[in-house]
Amino acid sequence: MPEKKPHSNWRAKVHEIIYEADTPAGKFFDIVLLIAILASILLVMLESIESLDQQYHSFFNVSEWIITILFSIEYILRIISVKKPLKYITSFYGVIDLLSTIPKYLSLIFVGTHALVAFRAIRLLRIFRILKLVRFLSASNHLATALKASRAKISVFMLTVVIITIILGTVMYLVEGKEHGFDNIPKSVYWCIVTLTTVGFGDITPQTPLGQIIASFIMIMGYGIIAVPTGIVSAEYTKHSKDEEEASNKAKPKSNPIIHTNSQSCANCLTSNHKDGAKFCYNCGHNLHLNSP
Amino acid sequence: MPEKKPHSNWRAKVHEIIYEADTPAGKFFDIVLLIAILASILLVMLESIESLDQQYHSFFNVSEWIITILFSIEYILRIISVKKPLKYITSFYGVIDLLSTIPKYLSLIFVGTHALVAFRAIRLLRIFRILKLVRFLSASNHLATALKASRAKISVFMLTVVIITIILGTVMYLVEGKEHGFDNIPKSVYWCIVTLTTVGFGDITPQTPLGQIIASFIMIMGYGIIAVPTGIVSAEYTKHSKDEEEASNKAKPKSNPIIHTNSQSCANCLTSNHKDGAKFCYNCGHNLHLNSP
Amino acid sequence: MPEKKPHSNWRAKVHEIIYEADTPAGKFFDIVLLIAILASILLVMLESIESLDQQYHSFFNVSEWIITILFSIEYILRIISVKKPLKYITSFYGVIDLLSTIPKYLSLIFVGTHALVAFRAIRLLRIFRILKLVRFLSASNHLATALKASRAKISVFMLTVVIITIILGTVMYLVEGKEHGFDNIPKSVYWCIVTLTTVGFGDITPQTPLGQIIASFIMIMGYGIIAVPTGIVSAEYTKHSKDEEEASNKAKPKSNPIIHTNSQSCANCLTSNHKDGAKFCYNCGHNLHLNSP
Amino acid sequence: MPEKKPHSNWRAKVHEIIYEADTPAGKFFDIVLLIAILASILLVMLESIESLDQQYHSFFNVSEWIITILFSIEYILRIISVKKPLKYITSFYGVIDLLSTIPKYLSLIFVGTHALVAFRAIRLLRIFRILKLVRFLSASNHLATALKASRAKISVFMLTVVIITIILGTVMYLVEGKEHGFDNIPKSVYWCIVTLTTVGFGDITPQTPLGQIIASFIMIMGYGIIAVPTGIVSAEYTKHSKDEEEASNKAKPKSNPIIHTNSQSCANCLTSNHKDGAKFCYNCGHNLHLNSP
Repeated sequence: MPEKKPHSNWRAKVHEIIYEADTPAGKFFDIVLLIAILASILLVMLESIESLDQQYHSFFNVSEWIITILFSIEYILRIISVKKPLKYITSFYGVIDLLSTIPKYLSLIFVGTHALVAFRAIRLLRIFRILKLVRFLSASNHLATALKASRAKISVFMLTVVIITIILGTVMYLVEGKEHGFDNIPKSVYWCIVTLTTVGFGDITPQTPLGQIIASFIMIMGYGIIAVPTGIVSAEYTKHSKDEEEASNKAKPKSNPIIHTNSQSCANCLTSNHKDGAKFCYNCGHNLHLNSP
Repeated sequence: MPEKKPHSNWRAKVHEIIYEADTPAGKFFDIVLLIAILASILLVMLESIESLDQQYHSFFNVSEWIITILFSIEYILRIISVKKPLKYITSFYGVIDLLSTIPKYLSLIFVGTHALVAFRAIRLLRIFRILKLVRFLSASNHLATALKASRAKISVFMLTVVIITIILGTVMYLVEGKEHGFDNIPKSVYWCIVTLTTVGFGDITPQTPLGQIIASFIMIMGYGIIAVPTGIVSAEYTKHSKDEEEASNKAKPKSNPIIHTNSQSCANCLTSNHKDGAKFCYNCGHNLHLNSP
Repeated sequence: MPEKKPHSNWRAKVHEIIYEADTPAGKFFDIVLLIAILASILLVMLESIESLDQQYHSFFNVSEWIITILFSIEYILRIISVKKPLKYITSFYGVIDLLSTIPKYLSLIFVGTHALVAFRAIRLLRIFRILKLVRFLSASNHLATALKASRAKISVFMLTVVIITIILGTVMYLVEGKEHGFDNIPKSVYWCIVTLTTVGFGDITPQTPLGQIIASFIMIMGYGIIAVPTGIVSAEYTKHSKDEEEASNKAKPKSNPIIHTNSQSCANCLTSNHKDGAKFCYNCGHNLHLNSP
Repeated sequence: MPEKKPHSNWRAKVHEIIYEADTPAGKFFDIVLLIAILASILLVMLESIESLDQQYHSFFNVSEWIITILFSIEYILRIISVKKPLKYITSFYGVIDLLSTIPKYLSLIFVGTHALVAFRAIRLLRIFRILKLVRFLSASNHLATALKASRAKISVFMLTVVIITIILGTVMYLVEGKEHGFDNIPKSVYWCIVTLTTVGFGDITPQTPLGQIIASFIMIMGYGIIAVPTGIVSAEYTKHSKDEEEASNKAKPKSNPIIHTNSQSCANCLTSNHKDGAKFCYNCGHNLHLNSP
């Protein structure tokens, strides 16, 4: 049971608007936020185009400052309206929200850092909150389970790939040498990765017959071993889909809990994914309807 | 029940020829149409080759006008012979059929638009009508089910890829800069997509060691995450194949309805996939044999 | 029952050596044949290298003539030793065997055709005969079943890809135009295929921002739709593996017929895959031990 | 039962430290070894960068000699501390350990060979020993089973690919010729592999319309046939996962033997993967606690 601190009414209201997407005001806020994020990313991108920057420099600068200040206000409101500000600040979204505002302020002191504003792109993940949040996140979690299950196998695979590229990169360095663009072993290893992953930039290419034979071997290997991670993820995903299906078949009499969760977030402990119609936080027992801890 | 309007006999005949592929006349019409579409696309392609255009300009122009006029006549006949012309005009094929004739007329007014005639390529989808239409469409629908089921997961995946390319594109812009071809953030993001998808044009390539390390990371990631959509589609497809198989096992005493549909199309409501030997439209009850509403 | 024609003893012996790989002589013949094919391909390849050709022209020429004459003798022996020569001549291997000898003779009349000798590479398929023929071919047939089952779906997929490349190729031609290497629509379509298949040569690349946006779209699409054929083949292959497994589980009391076939080939009807210890051809009833029809 | 030879105490101690990772000393040794391997690879890479080599040549040289001498001492200790040195020397790790030290000594006699030190990268495989060795190796073995089962099918696939590239390479050589970079058949075949595997360097590209049509065909084929190995590995992997699962379901009452093995290695016969708490080697019966044969 959390201790009950007095909480001003406007803070409860702010919490509802900022942290939840069920009320019209909350939904409106989230959509405005998304548009602001997209606009902000677009601005940084366009500003980096020299010809546009020379023409509209002050417009870009002012717009960015407006968005940055809005984001800063939002960040402060988030801290104020939540009961445990430290928990929010140290959470994933808290760190991202901070990183989204800082670079612009830093650009007053250091030149060139404001491009880091592009880290705001991570804030786009909030889009899941609005567009049927829970179902999407469940889809992504489902995928995450499959990826987690195949982690060990993919690590073994990746390490093998790294060892192969180091060895073959060295061999290519010895075979082709500086005169054909394989300047040193790291560059050779880089070329080997470019080739094995079938990217093939073509800025460095083998010129000697032996080098081309080894390159052919690397390419066919790269073409073949892509089957390995694909096969692993496919199989794990099939398995987990089946497990889930069986589990849901057994649990059919019960209503599916995924559908009936909502976007409410506990004002006390920030837990989300509450059941529809839940009155108390399932995690800390705080009254959800009061929205003030 | 549709109201019965008097319908001239030649319109019923035209409907049968244009909309169906079961009668010899209907089949012949469809094959001629396909050849005309292919010829038309070939003409536009060849006309765009300067050396050929200079030599055979008038031949290309006249041929295209002939085909365009034929398509226009066909379009008008389609509108006349069907009972609900508005339904056809606003249908997918109706829009495509219109778009296939308009560009050539527009080229009289605007220069350079006639290349849009290439949109006629979409009309090639009609090939499915002739070559055992139903089985192919069923195959494609089956695939569509799997793709639809994995839509949410692939959206999550795609959004993640977009966010990754925006962030890594910005990082590459900061690391490599203008002097190595990473002129601005949009171009950097474009390069990042080129690399992550393992296309690798090689028109822009990282030159600094740090840039090459990040590029290696992007390439290995791109090589790895291709496993995700493949795994999803694989698993969903396997699941849907199984479901269908089980369904068809249970339904074995009944004859398989997929085999016994035909290419008839209701003159009243344009519905197709009628059962072989069906006398009335399963959708609106219109008499199929009369072919006139 | 086939009619029994008298067949000279040496023809029976030749048939056994040429068409079968179970006797030491037959096996020895097949290995020599493979080495001759490999040597012949190697010769053509090396001859095409100008510097080597200038130095060893007569050696290459003489060696090739020797191999070609040996192949011609082998081809004639195959026709003589088999009972139904027409059947062999019109069979897949018969046509390939003929195509392997003709180009060299043609090179006496036409210049430059002798490079077609590389079609001899198809003869390498005979390697399956020697290296545990039946098991390999069974593996390949198994694969063939999966590929055949997914033919309709892959046709739909391929046609869609072709239509997409024609439309997007035209769009890119209109957007980028001649000044950026998109000379005409066919070249644009070619570029579109290069990009969609993630090959990405980089000889033609979009330069305008709009062109790069469309290119990004094509690349992401190409990266995504590779999941479709992979998913189809995966699912079909899994299904067929399971079917086969179930079938073999039911048939377990019986000995597995795949293991116990041999490389004998009926002298009368050319059928192969006879059971070990079989005395008569299962197809035409001809006595296999006599090896003469 | 092995014969009991007297074995000095320090050799038993050395064996425990070098060959096992369960005791603190053994774990510490393995971590130091890994760091040394990584440092050694990094040194060779950095040394190959000309600008760095000129500045820090003597530092690189001395550091490498130190590591090489350490590796030599380790190699000698491994031979001394094990009962059957010949078995270790001829084992996979024994050969790799030797190859890791030799190149540096050879560089005293031959110039340019010391880059072969990069073969030390193979020693990185020892990382599996430390990071929960057994589970990782099991994951890799599991994968190996799937890959082994699909070996025959992939061989058939690979041979077909090789035959296709030889034939299409020759055709491209005849179509494009020397003036467009297809200098000779081997180079054409190399280009064909580059294209089929979707690497696409772009150093050689078809210029004639016919060449581009054939190239388009090769690319679409390459894009499509990647589905084949992926499908095979996917299906085999799914099958083996299922088999294993079923086997483990049946064996559930028993404790899972994979979890309870440790990194001990028999001093007598070098066998590892002993059960936790095992007192005698399951392979030769040697007392594991004595650690001296």
